[in-house]
Amino acid sequence: MNGNSTHQAAHRVVIVGAGFGGLNAAERLARSSARITVIDRKNHHTFQPLLYQVATAGLSPGEITAPIRSILSHHKNVEVLLAEVTGFDLERRIVKTGDQEISYDSLIVAAGASHAYFGHDEWEALAPGLKTIEDALEIRRRVLLAFELAERRAFAGESCDPLNFVVVGAGPTGVELAGTLAEICRHALAHDFRSIDPARTRIHLIEGGQHVLPAYPEDLSRSALEQLQRLGVEVITSALVTRIEPGVICMGETRMDAAVILWAAGVAASPLGKKLGVPVDRAGRVLVDPDLSIPGHPKVFVIGDLAALKDASGKMLPGVAPVAILEGRYVAKLIRRQIELNRASASEPEPASRTAFHYYDKGSLATIGRAAAVAQFGKIHISGFLAWLAWLFVHILFLIGFRNRVLVFIQWAWSYFTYERSARLITGSTVLPGWGRVGPGEPGNSEAEQEMSTAMDK
Amino acid sequence: MNGNSTHQAAHRVVIVGAGFGGLNAAERLARSSARITVIDRKNHHTFQPLLYQVATAGLSPGEITAPIRSILSHHKNVEVLLAEVTGFDLERRIVKTGDQEISYDSLIVAAGASHAYFGHDEWEALAPGLKTIEDALEIRRRVLLAFELAERRAFAGESCDPLNFVVVGAGPTGVELAGTLAEICRHALAHDFRSIDPARTRIHLIEGGQHVLPAYPEDLSRSALEQLQRLGVEVITSALVTRIEPGVICMGETRMDAAVILWAAGVAASPLGKKLGVPVDRAGRVLVDPDLSIPGHPKVFVIGDLAALKDASGKMLPGVAPVAILEGRYVAKLIRRQIELNRASASEPEPASRTAFHYYDKGSLATIGRAAAVAQFGKIHISGFLAWLAWLFVHILFLIGFRNRVLVFIQWAWSYFTYERSARLITGSTVLPGWGRVGPGEPGNSEAEQEMSTAMDK
Repeated sequence: MNGNSTHQAAHRVVIVGAGFGGLNAAERLARSSARITVIDRKNHHTFQPLLYQVATAGLSPGEITAPIRSILSHHKNVEVLLAEVTGFDLERRIVKTGDQEISYDSLIVAAGASHAYFGHDEWEALAPGLKTIEDALEIRRRVLLAFELAERRAFAGESCDPLNFVVVGAGPTGVELAGTLAEICRHALAHDFRSIDPARTRIHLIEGGQHVLPAYPEDLSRSALEQLQRLGVEVITSALVTRIEPGVICMGETRMDAAVILWAAGVAASPLGKKLGVPVDRAGRVLVDPDLSIPGHPKVFVIGDLAALKDASGKMLPGVAPVAILEGRYVAKLIRRQIELNRASASEPEPASRTAFHYYDKGSLATIGRAAAVAQFGKIHISGFLAWLAWLFVHILFLIGFRNRVLVFIQWAWSYFTYERSARLITGSTVLPGWGRVGPGEPGNSEAEQEMSTAMDK
Repeated sequence: MNGNSTHQAAHRVVIVGAGFGGLNAAERLARSSARITVIDRKNHHTFQPLLYQVATAGLSPGEITAPIRSILSHHKNVEVLLAEVTGFDLERRIVKTGDQEISYDSLIVAAGASHAYFGHDEWEALAPGLKTIEDALEIRRRVLLAFELAERRAFAGESCDPLNFVVVGAGPTGVELAGTLAEICRHALAHDFRSIDPARTRIHLIEGGQHVLPAYPEDLSRSALEQLQRLGVEVITSALVTRIEPGVICMGETRMDAAVILWAAGVAASPLGKKLGVPVDRAGRVLVDPDLSIPGHPKVFVIGDLAALKDASGKMLPGVAPVAILEGRYVAKLIRRQIELNRASASEPEPASRTAFHYYDKGSLATIGRAAAVAQFGKIHISGFLAWLAWLFVHILFLIGFRNRVLVFIQWAWSYFTYERSARLITGSTVLPGWGRVGPGEPGNSEAEQEMSTAMDK
């Protein structure tokens, strides 16, 4: 048992999760007299907007991650713990991690979200999603392995249809994955095979709604569709996935063979949301008060993808990095004000009155591929190369750690001009469910499934 | 069934293994009219001399690997297959891969070596070795996880001894690992923890012989010992490991607690050597003829770490990259001469008389840490910064792929001046055998063990 909640001692803040929200809260709080403990079950912060680049072999995991410890190491009042939070005791002001109880004065829960398979959790092993580095490596492994196994079959004289890759869900992640996969097939891999032609690979993007990028204005949505089709992606809208088997995906009566199926269709909040014991929405997000605290607990805050909050117009705030960052900073400010009040008054005062969190949307950007993107800044809508440049600039600028930024920029400049993908590495299992395997005596796909199960993550 | 061995058609060469030997043979043969098939069970070539940098979080896997396919893609007569070779039929001139039979006119077996645990294979899960990218990631995971778990214990108020890391075997790999680990503890991690002091970490290097770097001249061996001790490594010579348990290593009566145990003590040739059906030495290396062919089969060659060949003075050629590279080129030359003879004569001729392979030793280099190394070029022996510069130059020069070279150089320049380690990423299992775990409900260390078993490799 640690910590101390008398007001003479330092105010203890526990932050669960070191994503964009948690890190920004920690950075802002570090300048106060608070003692901060950041708990995460990974040792690294992941720059999620570039995860698709790891999944498509463009960047290495080390280039879009940074150890949480080293990001925060210059703040002597910040402590980082690698641990998995298992629950809370809000009455005793305690966070539980299985073997430890960590006490707090203020608590920020920023545990993020994972994939949702809409009641079909058995699809996860067959159609991995993209939330963590482990997910990205699993996708990379499957995509590269599919080409290798197809080459082997063709070399042995088996006649095969061209490879088919299916991406389910045409939100930003699905669009990025489909666009980048199409590019890899046409360019990076074009000259590397002798018995198959990677350029003939089919890429299907399946969307349940009527449009790709459904959250974007219609003109940008249409532009994204055109850019995808120019890259060779076959887009199927208004189609619901009803069944996934090894190597096969079904939409109602339509069955489609697929070497690789990727899931970018649904998001579910971290199960930690439910453990706070307050109401959550259907996706498991915590229904927070306008100041991001939870009902009845003014010192417990939920931010980022785990929080459900509507803006002034009644629209749900999207699960994107800018929202999480601003929420983290807002909550840090509230807690700092509280610490100052505590210091001024001898007895513990009532929480100060708070202005509600307000999100000012500066715009949104979605990339589709090389020099292809859409962007919206208020009423300004742009597409294509200019939007892509804006996307590139913003993402390199916000990538954590100067060194990473330089390296990522060099990598991108290099692959822009050479079409090369630098991180085409297959590691781990060499089994592709429903498709084949490399070794003769490998133990099924149990390892891939285990990897997937440990990869269930914020 | 593929290929064709009549002399009108292209001469078919099968190369098993795309390490230094196999790749160099392929590159040289590619300029002939031969049809070449390179088979490897990994999709990437690994630059093994820098593996220890991945294991110690200095470089990312993508930076010291390159897809075999893309290294060879500009040679249209070279085919690459991701497959695991299971055996040979030398009479029918066939390589077996489980589900395929691939015929050859000339065969080069360059399947390399793995770790040897001297009859204690059960030690492998407790003391991983360093031969593949998977091995390196496993070592990185264990080292970083040890610090995280120690921090957690100390945070919870448990009193603990400083961490102890043990490296078994003081050949070049063991010396590199021990030296670099010592540096990381003193520098890269020094300011990142609050409850433990990484600088107090103990590093033990255990060697069965009387000296570190036993293959080097005595003065360099002594210099290496001094450089190691300056870095804080505790060297124990003439000590044999008799037992390894989770978290404990024993040398006779001496028991030592160890959070991480690394194995750099023994090398065993690939089991494919034995499958050729010709005599092998105790380490499983094939006793080749002076032209690197195997007895009775002038068109079957074994090169690299899998071959046992003595130089003119009767000393066994070492298992290092320069030997493998020169052997690969030598064998390629023999096969090209044979192809020319085949073309000149209508009937299949006898193999031409061959000059024996001769290895001219240009020198050897071993690095110990930052600005610490030893080098021998003939009678010139150098130590310290100059030797380290020579090592750096040679290794960056030979790193495959221009892009990788530039990136690695930038990384190194950066970490030389900042002491930072860029790839401090824990992925996969969060269990450390005999030491602890992160998650409360994780399924034992079965995943770590599975990883280790799939990592048994060339």
